[in-house]
Amino acid sequence: MVLLRVNYRFIAEEATAAGSKCILNDSPTWIIDPVDGTCNFVHRFPTVAVSIGFAVNKELEFGVIYHCTEERLYTGRRGQGAYCNDKKLQVSKVTDISKALILTEIGPKRDPDTLKVFLSNMERLLKAQAHGVRVIGSATLALCHLASGAADAYYQFGLHCWDLAAATVIIREAGGVVIDTSGGPLDLMSCRVVAAGTQEMATFIAQEIQPIHYRRDDEN
Amino acid sequence: MVLLRVNYRFIAEEATAAGSKCILNDSPTWIIDPVDGTCNFVHRFPTVAVSIGFAVNKELEFGVIYHCTEERLYTGRRGQGAYCNDKKLQVSKVTDISKALILTEIGPKRDPDTLKVFLSNMERLLKAQAHGVRVIGSATLALCHLASGAADAYYQFGLHCWDLAAATVIIREAGGVVIDTSGGPLDLMSCRVVAAGTQEMATFIAQEIQPIHYRRDDEN
Repeated sequence: MVLLRVNYRFIAEEATAAGSKCILNDSPTWIIDPVDGTCNFVHRFPTVAVSIGFAVNKELEFGVIYHCTEERLYTGRRGQGAYCNDKKLQVSKVTDISKALILTEIGPKRDPDTLKVFLSNMERLLKAQAHGVRVIGSATLALCHLASGAADAYYQFGLHCWDLAAATVIIREAGGVVIDTSGGPLDLMSCRVVAAGTQEMATFIAQEIQPIHYRRDDEN
Repeated sequence: MVLLRVNYRFIAEEATAAGSKCILNDSPTWIIDPVDGTCNFVHRFPTVAVSIGFAVNKELEFGVIYHCTEERLYTGRRGQGAYCNDKKLQVSKVTDISKALILTEIGPKRDPDTLKVFLSNMERLLKAQAHGVRVIGSATLALCHLASGAADAYYQFGLHCWDLAAATVIIREAGGVVIDTSGGPLDLMSCRVVAAGTQEMATFIAQEIQPIHYRRDDEN
């Protein structure tokens, strides 16, 4: 019954697309992406997730991500660890780019200038001898791979707070780092992120990549 | 007992790496990649497969690909159809690039000139309004996604006959097209491929991409 009295707010991709404002204030707020990997979903490419994060006083409290086709449930709760089904998650401790598997996504903007920077960033990391680069079409599942130690870094411009909220708790509780692409603290509304198993790897990626401008989630 | 009298030949990635010649002649030949997605395997990134193809008189007779972490067994036998576990496979019928999900892999060469062409090919397809491009780190599993209709095209330079043999049978039996990057017939030893659900899509990709030179599998 107590639950019913709380003034929950919701931020969700489909609601925002329908015109709702995307403002994070101190209220208890659910931050939801009902279908992450929409392009994959349309093609029946089996890398699709549901992502549910929860914040209070602008602090992320817990996150749940469900890999819809593989029945993997990733969970993280602040101060309580992160899990995939019943298995505790632990990020990798890789600090050397030549040993790193790096994940990224192309992002929604496809104009020639944006594509140039996206491809140039991939080129920079490959020239820096990154062991591999993957593009799987789901930011949340890529971030879950990072949390599980199966990848060493993730970066993207053009993702949204509903892609990041749940994954950020899960990665941090698995021992990882989630920061802004400038190298500073994460801004959940800034539509950009670097995440890694170690601070050294996150800092390296942040220094290596060039920015792509996207409008903030909380801009009108 | 009859099986034991046949003079089978084997072409396999690890045997070739150990110095065995990679020649396909008319003998019944197993063409095997014990671990496709080696970089993924090393990182415990869960996109790894075993691929087993079989050719007689240089003609591919059947193929089996096993997705090791998801327990999906893809099979194809010439003239008998293709399946994933018990489900019949059918490629997509997409002919329009703007509706196409395209898969590719970076390939083993990472010198600056090769990277330039790899990234330029991705740029050409994105500028042509490809719906999405994915890089998952396993050629055989990418080709299985194509066979299942979850992707519409695949291209790569720098893969090997053991990445292609089983997948080629599976894709063709699912109704798809596997050709050379020049647009001509597939040459299993040429280390390059375009595959698609339709001839139109395969031809479009072949015309759009620029070649990257790799030594043939059957060169000394």
